[in-house]
Amino acid sequence: MVRKRLIVVGGDAAGMSAASQLRRLDREREIVVFEKGPHTSYAACGIPYYVAGLIEKPEQLIARTPDTFREKYDIDARTLQEVTAVDCRGRTVQVRDHRNDRSYGMEFDDLLIATGALPFTPDVPGIEAEGVFGVNTLESGIALERFLQEKRPRRAVVVGGGYIGLEIAEALNCHRAVNVTLIERAPQVMGTLDPDMGALVGEAIRDVGIDLRLGETLKAVETSSDRVRAIVTDKGEIETDLIVLGLGVRPNTALAEEAGLALGVRNAIRVDDRMATPTEGVWAAGDCAETFHLVSRQPFHVALGTVANKMGRVAGVNLAGGEARFPGVVGTAVSKICRYEVARTGLLEAEAAKLGLDYSTATIKTRTRAGYYPGAGRIHVKLLAENGTGRLLGGQIVGVEGAAKRIDVIATCLHGKMTVQELVDMDLSYAPPFSPVWDPVQVAARALLKEV
Amino acid sequence: MVRKRLIVVGGDAAGMSAASQLRRLDREREIVVFEKGPHTSYAACGIPYYVAGLIEKPEQLIARTPDTFREKYDIDARTLQEVTAVDCRGRTVQVRDHRNDRSYGMEFDDLLIATGALPFTPDVPGIEAEGVFGVNTLESGIALERFLQEKRPRRAVVVGGGYIGLEIAEALNCHRAVNVTLIERAPQVMGTLDPDMGALVGEAIRDVGIDLRLGETLKAVETSSDRVRAIVTDKGEIETDLIVLGLGVRPNTALAEEAGLALGVRNAIRVDDRMATPTEGVWAAGDCAETFHLVSRQPFHVALGTVANKMGRVAGVNLAGGEARFPGVVGTAVSKICRYEVARTGLLEAEAAKLGLDYSTATIKTRTRAGYYPGAGRIHVKLLAENGTGRLLGGQIVGVEGAAKRIDVIATCLHGKMTVQELVDMDLSYAPPFSPVWDPVQVAARALLKEV
Repeated sequence: MVRKRLIVVGGDAAGMSAASQLRRLDREREIVVFEKGPHTSYAACGIPYYVAGLIEKPEQLIARTPDTFREKYDIDARTLQEVTAVDCRGRTVQVRDHRNDRSYGMEFDDLLIATGALPFTPDVPGIEAEGVFGVNTLESGIALERFLQEKRPRRAVVVGGGYIGLEIAEALNCHRAVNVTLIERAPQVMGTLDPDMGALVGEAIRDVGIDLRLGETLKAVETSSDRVRAIVTDKGEIETDLIVLGLGVRPNTALAEEAGLALGVRNAIRVDDRMATPTEGVWAAGDCAETFHLVSRQPFHVALGTVANKMGRVAGVNLAGGEARFPGVVGTAVSKICRYEVARTGLLEAEAAKLGLDYSTATIKTRTRAGYYPGAGRIHVKLLAENGTGRLLGGQIVGVEGAAKRIDVIATCLHGKMTVQELVDMDLSYAPPFSPVWDPVQVAARALLKEV
Repeated sequence: MVRKRLIVVGGDAAGMSAASQLRRLDREREIVVFEKGPHTSYAACGIPYYVAGLIEKPEQLIARTPDTFREKYDIDARTLQEVTAVDCRGRTVQVRDHRNDRSYGMEFDDLLIATGALPFTPDVPGIEAEGVFGVNTLESGIALERFLQEKRPRRAVVVGGGYIGLEIAEALNCHRAVNVTLIERAPQVMGTLDPDMGALVGEAIRDVGIDLRLGETLKAVETSSDRVRAIVTDKGEIETDLIVLGLGVRPNTALAEEAGLALGVRNAIRVDDRMATPTEGVWAAGDCAETFHLVSRQPFHVALGTVANKMGRVAGVNLAGGEARFPGVVGTAVSKICRYEVARTGLLEAEAAKLGLDYSTATIKTRTRAGYYPGAGRIHVKLLAENGTGRLLGGQIVGVEGAAKRIDVIATCLHGKMTVQELVDMDLSYAPPFSPVWDPVQVAARALLKEV
């Protein structure tokens, strides 16, 4: 009997989740994974903490090595093997073996594309200089950490004020004693927050000593003997020993596009809620795939490990002939910047307005614990709900320890299509070390109740 | 024009929430509050932390004083005034003025009974001795703290292994360097948890150095010159300098019963979801009132400040002629014992079985943060769901920092009548400092999905 073969393109969160899940349900299937980099299944979200020096060895970020996959799961995970072409009709892939500098083809019965995302790199002079780093792969994180060890830079410029930029700025500023300048083209950091909440994050960043420059655009990198010396922006020059790019990512779908697969939002691969593409036997999952936004009810793209893992699991179940669906996301994200915590879920004001929704908001400031309990710190909660129905549309939180994970209550309400009134009435946990009598999320809901 | 008068019996969470809410909506009404103790509106839940020495002054636990109520809210809050009888037909109350040692009557248009709860006191010889303390009122907390300051006891026995007993045991053991023996009649601490999760709490208690004795019953207090010397149990004698009773509470409803009001579960005052008793113009809220359990769909009683506040707010809105309803609770509670956190919501196994529900459970052990992130600690999550429908019925959490507040996601699911599958799919927040890629609650949901 010939074993049916699944080929997985990409050996990180989505690809390896799918492969492992399939193996759990189907002991017979042949599973081959091609990963163009040297590592499989690593925690990309952990890279800023490795750069911070909070994690000793990069291996700690690797959940499972190719050897583990081979020996424990009978999954043929091949690193430094790049899939360069896919022929959906002929059911074959072309592979470039970077280890042995050769190419070969392989046939598949099923194909799962899990090629992840690519970082944006600004097309400016000097961007290839020594001392300019990205942080999207484990290799790039290792290279940056080595640079920090060896060159002991005093000054760094981080380009981009989204999650990755902020986390790297934290790592360098709060943990490696590097003087950090953060430049962001937009008038606020954290474009995934409303401007008022983004402004709170901006304050928090300045509060920890980061030199934040908003509305400033990278124009060139100045070098001296091929090494970074300064950056030039539209507002001037900033001397620096190190530049880290944290400009966000886009779906890595050139291969899929060349193979003729349909692309959707942000050029992510179009899939249904089973992770199947419209092309028979071809699947996609993770940062390269489109998903669905359960509040806006529209196709959506997000590049997050937690979503990639869920998509991978669903793909694996369906590849095994089972029945699993990934209904979509509500846009939840969380981040830590030194002692500050930032979280968001659902729609921004701008997004709600664009959808033509009639909405109100309320923003409150209270404490993370009972006011009299030691360590009670500040927390700001903003809620968004539809007028009339009272249906919750989104929430944002900025605060200190214990603040951010409260976003999960709002996310759960969004999944349950619950109202502001229901949130006010909710039996959330209370004890002085954990919360004021009215949880901050409910304080915000009470304020919003008066508006909707 | 004669102002209509509301009389409130009891000046703590429910009573003062109702009075304040009414005042916000109605500037005309006359509001008189009778409180038999010396304080209004204090955080009873904070008493263990005052005893622990974490809070400097007892005044920090008082949200608002009678003067504040009088001056800012035009609420006539009278302390040391005990309502001794209620005549519902005659619309009057009898009041004992303990300050001036006299009695008087007063008429009402509306009456709100918010008499709270009374602690259980075991009827054993010696229980009135010096050195035996309860901790249910601010006065009793102040008395205990003064005893700790003045007598510097080396040994204490805490009687009762529920929330209050454990929190006091923590306060004495972890913060006041007193050697604590905790005795509990039942075979487990924390009867609000299933035995397996209760056993984890028992381990945690022993881990912090508390001498935990299960299945042991207080029989007598031995004294020497009227001061505590030891306790006698059914298993022997334990020498001690101090005894603290933490045996839980029951609704304080003797007054309501004498007034002919209907009582329900645990003798709590029967009310509808507007906080109205069946007697016209008589209302009840807080620890003395019955509520509804939204999972079991049965009348229920719970004595918690957070519920009392919510009930009070609803009573206040309705007293003002508005329309507010308190739909009920799902049985959420949380507690901290030194570095351990304990939380629960919904039904226990025993409760589900008693209701004749066909259910499954799953219990998992994982980490509070990404495994590689510093400070990742242990967390145990147990979930309960109905077979067939997959509807979530309850959850319990025992773990370290960051563990307990996750119960709110499960509580929100219970409010939303959500299923295990919905919880697995949920877009909960993830970043390495906050959570593993799959939140522990979702790890438990994945395990449970296989069972239901």
